[in-house]
Amino acid sequence: MSIRQLALDCRLAARHVAALSSAAKVALLLAMADTLQAHSGQILASNAEDLHDAAAKGIKGPMLDRLRLDAARLHAIADSVRHIAALPDPIGQVTRSDRLPNGLQVERVRIPLGVIAMIYEARPNVTADAAALCLKAGNGVLLRGGSEALHSNTAIAAALHEALEAHGVPPAAVTLIGDLSRDAMIELLQQSDVVDLAIPRGGEALIHFVAEHARVPVIKHYKGICHLYVDSVVDMDSALGLLIDGKTSRPAVCNALETLLVHRDVAPRFLPLAAAALLKRGVELRGDERTRALVPQAKPASDADYATEYLDLVLSVCVVDDLESAIAHIQKYGTDHTEVIATGDPAAAARFVDALRSAVIMVNASSRFADGGELGLGAEIGISTTRLHAYGPMGAESLTVERFVVRGEGQVRHPLPLPA
Amino acid sequence: MSIRQLALDCRLAARHVAALSSAAKVALLLAMADTLQAHSGQILASNAEDLHDAAAKGIKGPMLDRLRLDAARLHAIADSVRHIAALPDPIGQVTRSDRLPNGLQVERVRIPLGVIAMIYEARPNVTADAAALCLKAGNGVLLRGGSEALHSNTAIAAALHEALEAHGVPPAAVTLIGDLSRDAMIELLQQSDVVDLAIPRGGEALIHFVAEHARVPVIKHYKGICHLYVDSVVDMDSALGLLIDGKTSRPAVCNALETLLVHRDVAPRFLPLAAAALLKRGVELRGDERTRALVPQAKPASDADYATEYLDLVLSVCVVDDLESAIAHIQKYGTDHTEVIATGDPAAAARFVDALRSAVIMVNASSRFADGGELGLGAEIGISTTRLHAYGPMGAESLTVERFVVRGEGQVRHPLPLPA
Repeated sequence: MSIRQLALDCRLAARHVAALSSAAKVALLLAMADTLQAHSGQILASNAEDLHDAAAKGIKGPMLDRLRLDAARLHAIADSVRHIAALPDPIGQVTRSDRLPNGLQVERVRIPLGVIAMIYEARPNVTADAAALCLKAGNGVLLRGGSEALHSNTAIAAALHEALEAHGVPPAAVTLIGDLSRDAMIELLQQSDVVDLAIPRGGEALIHFVAEHARVPVIKHYKGICHLYVDSVVDMDSALGLLIDGKTSRPAVCNALETLLVHRDVAPRFLPLAAAALLKRGVELRGDERTRALVPQAKPASDADYATEYLDLVLSVCVVDDLESAIAHIQKYGTDHTEVIATGDPAAAARFVDALRSAVIMVNASSRFADGGELGLGAEIGISTTRLHAYGPMGAESLTVERFVVRGEGQVRHPLPLPA
Repeated sequence: MSIRQLALDCRLAARHVAALSSAAKVALLLAMADTLQAHSGQILASNAEDLHDAAAKGIKGPMLDRLRLDAARLHAIADSVRHIAALPDPIGQVTRSDRLPNGLQVERVRIPLGVIAMIYEARPNVTADAAALCLKAGNGVLLRGGSEALHSNTAIAAALHEALEAHGVPPAAVTLIGDLSRDAMIELLQQSDVVDLAIPRGGEALIHFVAEHARVPVIKHYKGICHLYVDSVVDMDSALGLLIDGKTSRPAVCNALETLLVHRDVAPRFLPLAAAALLKRGVELRGDERTRALVPQAKPASDADYATEYLDLVLSVCVVDDLESAIAHIQKYGTDHTEVIATGDPAAAARFVDALRSAVIMVNASSRFADGGELGLGAEIGISTTRLHAYGPMGAESLTVERFVVRGEGQVRHPLPLPA
């Protein structure tokens, strides 16, 4: 079937989804979680095929890890769908209600966006998460995953379709696009009268490709170069905890730390401790001269290092003169994703928050919390570093828009004598 | 100066604006209103030049009216700036604050978008309104008005710059782009690393041009084909008032009515009354067969008529079998702008609201209220029919985005024993 026809079918199905009651959506999502687990044999077998092909292509390390499913991860995916089911329904929410002096009652009410196109690479969990979030918010979704995960995604979509059909919703509401050609992707991105939003998730090349060819609105983030700034007034253990968690707990994800900035007054005490802890965990360090004077094991850091999202066990380090220098560094190299300050000084924290425009600012909390699930959104469909519509982790509410419903008793703008 | 340089200068100036306190922004906007009035002689003289040139080019009727300024309209423009000054400051607003079980305090806080590019045609009031709204929301603005209004816009911008300079804000925060070439516009629309949002306001050709060439996010509306549906259970006088106000009070604007749909049960009583009132006011009627049987003066309406935004004293009319037929007509021909139902039946009103996805739904209120000023936003920078970020009239709040500020006491996602 053509991409155009898939998109049109998805839009038609999306109208069914938009008309579902909150209770019907909960039942549908719970059924989806169940069919995901009921199909676990098929899904894991398909994932094994993908892993085998990927390994044969030389994919390894954290990139291969993103592709991998096992019983525990599949269980977590199903639980995530159940968790999304239990979230408040954003649709129909009245976000504001005002009575104007002329008697008009003006409400802002959330409605679905319509049809979302998800374009992503090798993470099969996105397939289920995106479907669940889009449905929760009354939308249809076109899923265009990466070729590495095609078997896994096909098996997951089959499980989801079983639940959709059992609940009387056209399966086209969750459409997996099998034609992974470049032309098909471009055609998808040009369906501006059918697709309301495209969300690309993946490497920079993918995002650039989508931004270049899209005629539909795009919410994206290019890179997550997340910074931790360790201020002069600081609890060492707390700062060390933030550093190790941010860098090593899952280095291949966008909310992992890439750069450590340390106030020069605290560097002589903090950096040797930090280096010991990181080196023990296999982290390669790249630092400026002042860092290398304190940490001989660090390699020299270039300008390019500070602008690199390693997504691996590598950390750039820079000793800065003060808070303002740290802010200037982040303004120069940052990607508007997540920045962390470790400080015991409330004034420094306030200045850090005010001066930076990143989507998420953490004061004494790990960058790894920059995630929809961790920040109370239930789950996330992506993280926006586009300062429009949504900024930061996006949950179900980010897949809706507020419209106006106005109720009156015949009010007109320019009252005139009537002719009869 | 190159477009690139103008955009970069505007971004730098926007950082000054973002750092202004609420009180400083109020003082700045009040000063802008004053300088607009102090410069009224120059502004009206410049507008007279524009009007003269436009008339020589054959522009007339409602289109010429959009370009015209006089003392009263200029006073209204200055008052609009004062009104925007007095609105609540959206910046810094905490829209949500939650404490999570792990102790993290998660706030959503409004920040400016950054740099807005306004691309518009022949309405010089947009120059002052857009500048005031963008500044109120902490943004810089690049103004690219139409050639017909260049003299007026230059004079208005000069007045605004006087106020900016007096308040220590770089005048580049409000930058009027004088190079009106096609190439310059394309260059502006490609500044995706500097311009955060483009808002085109004008005819369909302009909007298509912007959508085609933009690599920056665009919020737009193509057309406002606004419908009034007169239900079978209805107060005739009220419906007639909504019709006359919607069609005749300012036919050249996007929230004017273009199509009247009448339930067949009420058509024999309503249509002759409506036709008499409209014909008296110079409105040309184009109707389907059932309409023409009741209103002999109506010309035949084609399919193309129902898809046309006349922006003039012309009205398409169609008799429909019932509410569902009216909804189907609007779904076929509507442009997601504003739809009105005149009804005394709450169930019909509820069905109309639920079934339609337009940005503004009016129940027994004139389509002409679909305007930021009229709906309590203070003023509007445009109306979005893009279901993303904003949908419907856009005020200062639509020029902001919510980001996350998270405060903790050293929380990490995966607590580990520390190494020392």
